[in-house]
Amino acid sequence: MIGTRHITLPKGFHAAGVKCGIKTSDQEDLAIIVADERVPAALMTTSNQVVGAPVLWCRDVLPRGCGKVRGIVINSGNSNVCTGKRGLRDARAMAAHAAKLVGAAAGEMLVASTGIIGHPLPMTKIGRGISKAAKALGRRDDSAVVRAIMTTDTREKSAVVQTRIGGQTVTVAGIIKGAGMIAPSLATMIAVVTTDADVAPRLLQQAFKAGIAASINAVTIDSDQSTSDTAVVMASGKAGRRIMAGSADYRKFAGALGEVLTALAMAMARDGEGATRLIEVHVAGARTDAEAKIAAMAVADSPLVKTAVHGGDPNWGRIVMAVGKSAARVVPEKLSVKIGPAAVFARGMPRKFSLRSVAKHLAGDPVVFEVNLGLGKGRFTAYTCDLSREYITINADYHT
Amino acid sequence: MIGTRHITLPKGFHAAGVKCGIKTSDQEDLAIIVADERVPAALMTTSNQVVGAPVLWCRDVLPRGCGKVRGIVINSGNSNVCTGKRGLRDARAMAAHAAKLVGAAAGEMLVASTGIIGHPLPMTKIGRGISKAAKALGRRDDSAVVRAIMTTDTREKSAVVQTRIGGQTVTVAGIIKGAGMIAPSLATMIAVVTTDADVAPRLLQQAFKAGIAASINAVTIDSDQSTSDTAVVMASGKAGRRIMAGSADYRKFAGALGEVLTALAMAMARDGEGATRLIEVHVAGARTDAEAKIAAMAVADSPLVKTAVHGGDPNWGRIVMAVGKSAARVVPEKLSVKIGPAAVFARGMPRKFSLRSVAKHLAGDPVVFEVNLGLGKGRFTAYTCDLSREYITINADYHT
Repeated sequence: MIGTRHITLPKGFHAAGVKCGIKTSDQEDLAIIVADERVPAALMTTSNQVVGAPVLWCRDVLPRGCGKVRGIVINSGNSNVCTGKRGLRDARAMAAHAAKLVGAAAGEMLVASTGIIGHPLPMTKIGRGISKAAKALGRRDDSAVVRAIMTTDTREKSAVVQTRIGGQTVTVAGIIKGAGMIAPSLATMIAVVTTDADVAPRLLQQAFKAGIAASINAVTIDSDQSTSDTAVVMASGKAGRRIMAGSADYRKFAGALGEVLTALAMAMARDGEGATRLIEVHVAGARTDAEAKIAAMAVADSPLVKTAVHGGDPNWGRIVMAVGKSAARVVPEKLSVKIGPAAVFARGMPRKFSLRSVAKHLAGDPVVFEVNLGLGKGRFTAYTCDLSREYITINADYHT
Repeated sequence: MIGTRHITLPKGFHAAGVKCGIKTSDQEDLAIIVADERVPAALMTTSNQVVGAPVLWCRDVLPRGCGKVRGIVINSGNSNVCTGKRGLRDARAMAAHAAKLVGAAAGEMLVASTGIIGHPLPMTKIGRGISKAAKALGRRDDSAVVRAIMTTDTREKSAVVQTRIGGQTVTVAGIIKGAGMIAPSLATMIAVVTTDADVAPRLLQQAFKAGIAASINAVTIDSDQSTSDTAVVMASGKAGRRIMAGSADYRKFAGALGEVLTALAMAMARDGEGATRLIEVHVAGARTDAEAKIAAMAVADSPLVKTAVHGGDPNWGRIVMAVGKSAARVVPEKLSVKIGPAAVFARGMPRKFSLRSVAKHLAGDPVVFEVNLGLGKGRFTAYTCDLSREYITINADYHT
C-alpha cells in the first residue's frame, strides 16, 4: 500500500492530482493536498531575492514560517514569477478558489507554482483544474499528485517513514520535485511533507529546519537557485501522543522527519537533470561543521568533478582542486581523499590504488567521496549528481 | 609582422617553444621566454590553497610579487601539482637548468607548469627540451611559444598594443593559455606579458594588478579554479622614457597593458572548453563595484544561463534568477535586462521584444547582456562562454 499511497498515508489528509492543460505534454499539472481541519504547519522558501507571487503569498499566510493551515494547491508548467501585480492576484485567486471548495478561508491555503517564468497563469484552466481536483480528493491516487508537481523530473519521488510514539504508529510521508536549478538554499524544488504526529507549529518548524539543513539544503544540481522553491510540512495530530520539546518522542519524530527529507533529497539529486547517478560528498576533519559544508559544496558544485564521475575517471586531482579553492581552511599536507573503497590521496600526496576497483565504484550508484581535511571535528555530507551531455541538451533546448 | 611575432616584439626579449615529448600529441610543450638582462617583473598566482610546486617556486623568487627576473620556463602536459618534495626539487631544477643556459642564476628564473596533476615531471625529457629551447631562442617563432603552453586550448591566443611614450613607440605584448578550470581569481591559466616600457617593479605591479582585476579575474569558464595559475609581466625598459607614478605616461602605459590583458581575457573566454561564443555580462546600477562584480559573476557562472545561450534561447528569466540568487543587493522592481539590442525585462516585468532580433544576436559572437540593478553607480563586466555538450565530452573523457 505504501507503493501507491504516501502523502495521504498519515491520518487526516486527502490529496488529488489532475490534468488541466497547463503543460503541453498531457500530464497532470494541478494538485491539492489538504488536511481535514486547520493543522500545524511549517514553511521554508527560496532565499533568491527574486521570488514568485506564490512564495510571497505563502509568506503572507505564514509570516513567521509556521502556524496553522488547511492545505496547499500546486500547479506545474508555469511558475507565476515576474508577473507583477497580476501574478499576486492570481496566486490569491488560486488559494481562494481551492479554499472555498474545501470549506476553508483563502488565508489558510498555501500556493506553489513551478515552470516557465514571466507568463501570466492561464487562470481559466487553473480554475477548472482546482474544481476537478477538489472533486477527486477522495480518490487516493497519490501517484497522480506527484506527477502533477513534476517538471523536468524523470521519476516520481516520495518517501514514507513510520515510528512509534506513545504506543501508536506515527507516519511521516513526503513528496518532492526537483531536477534542475537546485542549489542551496532550496531551488526549483517543491516538497510537501504530511504527518499525523501531534506537534505544535513552533516545534514542527524546529524539526523541519534541522531536517532541511542536512538534506534538501545539502543538495546541489547545478549551483543555480530558483525563484519558486517551497517546502511545507503539515501535522494532523491524529496519531500518537502530544510531542513535547526535548523529549524522547521529539527525537523519534525529528529522526523520522529527517529520514524522509534525506530520502527525498537523495532522490532529487539522483534525478538531477541529465543525471545518471547520485554522488555523496562526505567531508570530515574540517575546523567546523560550517567549513565542512563549504568544502563539501565546493566539490559537489564543481563541473569538473561531476564530468569526471560521468566519464568514470578517478580524478582525485579535481576533488583536491575543488576543496582547495573553497573558503574552508585547507592544509594540503593534511588532506586525504577516498573514492569509494580506495584511498587515492593521503596527506598531500597521491597514493597507489587499484584503478579497476575505483572504476567499478565510479560506474555504480551512489558514487561516494570521503574527504578528510585533518584539521578538526567538523563534518557535512553534500549530495549531487554527475554532469552529462543530457544536462546541456535539456537546458539548451528548453524554450522560453 | 605582428601576425606571427608578439611576445618578442617588445625590444629586449627572446623566446622559443619546442617539442620535448611530455604531451602525447606530438605538439610543442616547452617554452622559454627571457629578457636580455634582469628586468622589472610582477607576478600573480592562483588563490587556490592547493598549489603546484612551480607556483611555490615563483613565490620564492618574487616574495612580494614583484622584483627583477631574467625570464620564465614553462611546460605543458604535466602541472607538477601534488608531487611533494620531489615536485619542488623538479621545479627548482627546471629553473636552474634554463638559467644556466642563458647565463643567469636559478633564483632569477620563474617556472610554470600546466597539465595533469599528481604525476612527477618527466625530468629527462624536460631537461632535453630546455636545452633545445635555449638553442632556439633566436628563431623568432612566437607561434611555437604559444603552442607550447596550450593544453585543451583550441586557438593560439595573443595580443599586442602599442602606444607613444616620450616620443617613442612602446610595445606591450601578451600570450595566454586557458580553456577549462578558469574562474577568478586566476585559474588553469598561464599568461606572460612582455613590454619594452621603462617602469620600476612596484609601479609595474600596480598597473598589472589593476589590469588583471578587470580582465583575467573577470573571466569564468566553469567556476572551477586551478592549482597552477600564473600571470607574469616583464618590462625591459628599452623604449620610451622612465614612467613615473601618477603621470600621463603611466596612464598611457597602464591603458595599453589593460587593453592587452582584456584582449587576452576575452580570447580565453571565447576559447573556453566546448565554447562556441563569448558572453559579456555588463552589470551597472549596483550599490558598489564589488556588488556589480558579484552579480556579473553570478550570471557568468550560471550553467542555466550558459546553456540557454548555447541553445539560442532568449531566457531572461535565468539571468534574473542568477542575479537574484547572488549576494548583491537586488530589488526586483528596479531590475532591468537587455539581451543585445533588446530590452527584455524592465523594472521587474518582462517586456515585449522582437524574438527574431534577439535570436539573431544570440547566434552571433559576442553575446552581450546588460543588467541594470537601478540602485547605484557600481559597475563591472564579466566574461564567459556558452556551455555545450562538448564541454562535457572534453571533461568526461579526459583521463587521469
